[in-house]
Amino acid sequence: MTKQLSDVEIAQAHQLQPITDIARSAGIPDEALIAYGTTKAKVDITAIADRPHTGKVVLVTGVSPTPAGEGKSTVLIGLTDALAAAGHKAIVALREPSQGPVMGIKGGAAGGGYSQIVPMEDINLHFTGDFHAIAAATNTLAALIDNHIHQGNALNIDPRRVTWQRCVDVNDRALRHVVTGLGGPTAGVPAETGFTITAASEIMAILGLATSLKDLKERLGNITIGYTYDSQPVTARQLEAEGALTALMRDALNPNLVQTLGGTPAFVHGGPFANIAHGCNTLLATQTAQQFGDIVLTEAGFGADLGGEKFLDIKARFGGIDVAGAVVVVTIRSQKYNGGQAREELSTENLDALSAGIVNVERHVENLRKFGVEPVVALNLFWSDTDAEREFMRTWAKDFGVTLAEADVWSKGGAGATELAHALVENLQEGASHPLYDPEKGVEASIETIAREIYRAERVEYGPQARKDLAYIKANGWENFPVVISKTQYSFSDDPTALGAPSGHTLHVRELLPRTGAGFIVVLTGDVMTMPGLPKEPAANRINVAADGTISGLF
Amino acid sequence: MTKQLSDVEIAQAHQLQPITDIARSAGIPDEALIAYGTTKAKVDITAIADRPHTGKVVLVTGVSPTPAGEGKSTVLIGLTDALAAAGHKAIVALREPSQGPVMGIKGGAAGGGYSQIVPMEDINLHFTGDFHAIAAATNTLAALIDNHIHQGNALNIDPRRVTWQRCVDVNDRALRHVVTGLGGPTAGVPAETGFTITAASEIMAILGLATSLKDLKERLGNITIGYTYDSQPVTARQLEAEGALTALMRDALNPNLVQTLGGTPAFVHGGPFANIAHGCNTLLATQTAQQFGDIVLTEAGFGADLGGEKFLDIKARFGGIDVAGAVVVVTIRSQKYNGGQAREELSTENLDALSAGIVNVERHVENLRKFGVEPVVALNLFWSDTDAEREFMRTWAKDFGVTLAEADVWSKGGAGATELAHALVENLQEGASHPLYDPEKGVEASIETIAREIYRAERVEYGPQARKDLAYIKANGWENFPVVISKTQYSFSDDPTALGAPSGHTLHVRELLPRTGAGFIVVLTGDVMTMPGLPKEPAANRINVAADGTISGLF
Repeated sequence: MTKQLSDVEIAQAHQLQPITDIARSAGIPDEALIAYGTTKAKVDITAIADRPHTGKVVLVTGVSPTPAGEGKSTVLIGLTDALAAAGHKAIVALREPSQGPVMGIKGGAAGGGYSQIVPMEDINLHFTGDFHAIAAATNTLAALIDNHIHQGNALNIDPRRVTWQRCVDVNDRALRHVVTGLGGPTAGVPAETGFTITAASEIMAILGLATSLKDLKERLGNITIGYTYDSQPVTARQLEAEGALTALMRDALNPNLVQTLGGTPAFVHGGPFANIAHGCNTLLATQTAQQFGDIVLTEAGFGADLGGEKFLDIKARFGGIDVAGAVVVVTIRSQKYNGGQAREELSTENLDALSAGIVNVERHVENLRKFGVEPVVALNLFWSDTDAEREFMRTWAKDFGVTLAEADVWSKGGAGATELAHALVENLQEGASHPLYDPEKGVEASIETIAREIYRAERVEYGPQARKDLAYIKANGWENFPVVISKTQYSFSDDPTALGAPSGHTLHVRELLPRTGAGFIVVLTGDVMTMPGLPKEPAANRINVAADGTISGLF
Repeated sequence: MTKQLSDVEIAQAHQLQPITDIARSAGIPDEALIAYGTTKAKVDITAIADRPHTGKVVLVTGVSPTPAGEGKSTVLIGLTDALAAAGHKAIVALREPSQGPVMGIKGGAAGGGYSQIVPMEDINLHFTGDFHAIAAATNTLAALIDNHIHQGNALNIDPRRVTWQRCVDVNDRALRHVVTGLGGPTAGVPAETGFTITAASEIMAILGLATSLKDLKERLGNITIGYTYDSQPVTARQLEAEGALTALMRDALNPNLVQTLGGTPAFVHGGPFANIAHGCNTLLATQTAQQFGDIVLTEAGFGADLGGEKFLDIKARFGGIDVAGAVVVVTIRSQKYNGGQAREELSTENLDALSAGIVNVERHVENLRKFGVEPVVALNLFWSDTDAEREFMRTWAKDFGVTLAEADVWSKGGAGATELAHALVENLQEGASHPLYDPEKGVEASIETIAREIYRAERVEYGPQARKDLAYIKANGWENFPVVISKTQYSFSDDPTALGAPSGHTLHVRELLPRTGAGFIVVLTGDVMTMPGLPKEPAANRINVAADGTISGLF
């Protein structure tokens, strides 16, 4: 066996095509391309605004994961390369990685092995500056708020009720809870506040859903930054901030174009979390990919119950996207984990656990069908999978009545997804997808529908804060916003230890956060981590740069 | 009289040349150019490393300013265009503007009128991401420090003695003094700390002085982040952070190339403050400009006593730069201000005040001669200047024995600096410039030499903290670092109200801050502002973006 290469070594050994060639191969006109070096570019959306969005959108989603994840992005990238090799005009539309976790545990997030997007070092570090623009806008708004209060507070903002938080793209637990404005009267008004990681900021969610510069400015103006002493919401527009924020976000709004190792065009743009936000790449990037591709493969974070639901109920609804197909990425390990096998034993064959856990993928498939989408199950192979386990999966799929195809994309790239590509194309259907609920029926009805249909809960319980929040949401006319339910990714329920396919449980709603700029209500069912920490041995300690600029230590 | 156009309107009405054409006109090889869109680029320093640094460096500096500033950058840009028009291969090397003040009072900083660098909106907002990279590196290091303490503190760091601060490129006074790490044991260790604006961070100073990626990594590793419980310094290297920080800074190290309105190449790179750091564009950008230009015009912040001294004693010393000429930018208003005329009356002719204040420019000229540099005085014209005042200046220059030339660059661009360009070229001399002091004689001797020769103080007094700091600096072997004296820009003394050319005063040293990464000791003589605030009516409120992306409200 040859030495296993790391992701960054595979990516660096690869000869990238000039991004101008990638763009031309996709049919993107030269005048719409804004190059960032020779291998990255942004596409000027104003230069292509008149092209129809004709590409078929395929949602790549997953089962309830193990803590290691199931390789959704890697399957998506390999699958796109396989589609391209089969003669389809396929384009990737993925989220941008956050730099904070790159320095923490992960060390990099742009696919893996021979199914990567490149240049992976650039994509993982700074990229084209979108996250930095979001942080600049977020922190400028924070400064404008505090300055307004400091300079006389004409809007009567209650400093104790400012909900707007600053952000950085760093895993920094010490910034979760901070007190600012200390140091006396020339240094502002003291306030108890915190920082989120940039991916969790509302402006990230806004970037994800904006359809134009005009729409971006409208949404930025709609942000609720906090409340007055008499409990009235205060918007960024009242602070006259939306013009400056839009200026800071102007370039970030244009989708980023890179390539896969197979030379397929890839739009990598936006990266909101799938708990505090809707968890997918930008609507604009997906629509831009639709303008130039016949098949657009796009991903939603976490399992189909979280990211998949939000993709269909939030992004597809806002953007009028027809979802022509879906891929549920499953691993044998994940289903054994859902069937009760301990995490450290997942490399051992266990057909009983697999048989017990398979209800998990069944549930995800059933759920997607409720949106009018017929998914294909992609079995992402792992070295520890046994022949008997793989045979079990094939038999299960036949019995359950879903198309299953194996994928071996980490080690083979697109060549490992030929069968999956064929299966996907066979299952595409247009015009059948739809959202699950009607927001016009109100926030509680929306929550109840998702809880019943997707999470299979028997009832929804609202805690004391949630009841207050609901009343406040109604009083302010926000009750017809769609909902972003924040829930553990490890279970259909709000209990991360309830694996498999639990039902009959209670969904506990703790708090509701209006996100009037993004245009949704975040529904918290448990603790939500909006600022990760670093581990004892941070990945940063392994990252290095040679004198010629070659970066090592990204995985 | 036609309507006066704003800076951004003038810049937007101008047809920029493709940056590839600008680069070719300068002789920069195509393979060294990393384009950021069509009008900005970085130059890959590794691709041009073997070219000699032959261009003659001209330092553009100024007198003790009025609060409105004297237009150094504007004169520099117009002068470069004039030199180019006269057939010289002239190149600009300037600092990058900070985004924080753009949202505060200034609204933009890239020259003015018809002497600007363009694209001015991009240069003022995000540009090529250098400031963001510095903030990412700075804040990643902060997270690594706090995480180290949180995860067991093997290095025995005293959380009360961590000197490393986070930064953002936002004017946010509420971040000057903060408490982090609140929220209980899972949210880190509580600490009293603060944020600076990015321009004031040590990594900005390091970027300004690094000569290669290897040198950058060395300096990042040398950063002192704080002290142990037994008062030993702790470096970023001990935290194994320098590789990751270098990876975050890799692209930022390459100088940025843009153009003037006259189509002259302009390197705009790095932006350290001239009080807490050395206050000029990067050494690498100046040297890159020397590789491709015959005459390189570069600027130092504040007056010649502050930025000019630091340019010659820090940057030129570190980089072995021969300063072939200097321009002292003076305005009639500034000399009247130094002569006692009230700020609000500066538009009224006052020959008495001018005659009293002219000692200020005399002193700056004398000071520069102490470095072996013969400056030209550039009289930057203002609409309120009277014929009698201009005549006074011409007579004064003849009597004092210095070359003076008028410049009218704001309204005329390069055409307004023809005479100045001629005077400058006549006065160039090579091989005569030298630093003022010898750091080997120790920090106190360095401070005393600057205080005596440049500030014309009679004595230096060290406060109690400064005496402690001095002892600590000696104990750690840092006493041969050069010094960066932080002093008010409004006076040669440390008293901002002592205008003109004070002498015989005492320089009060309050505190000394070792900057072991940058490689200098900061000497504080008064309060130094490292985080500005926003005014009551922030410039952000006027900034806007049209649907086609055109930005307005930058001045």
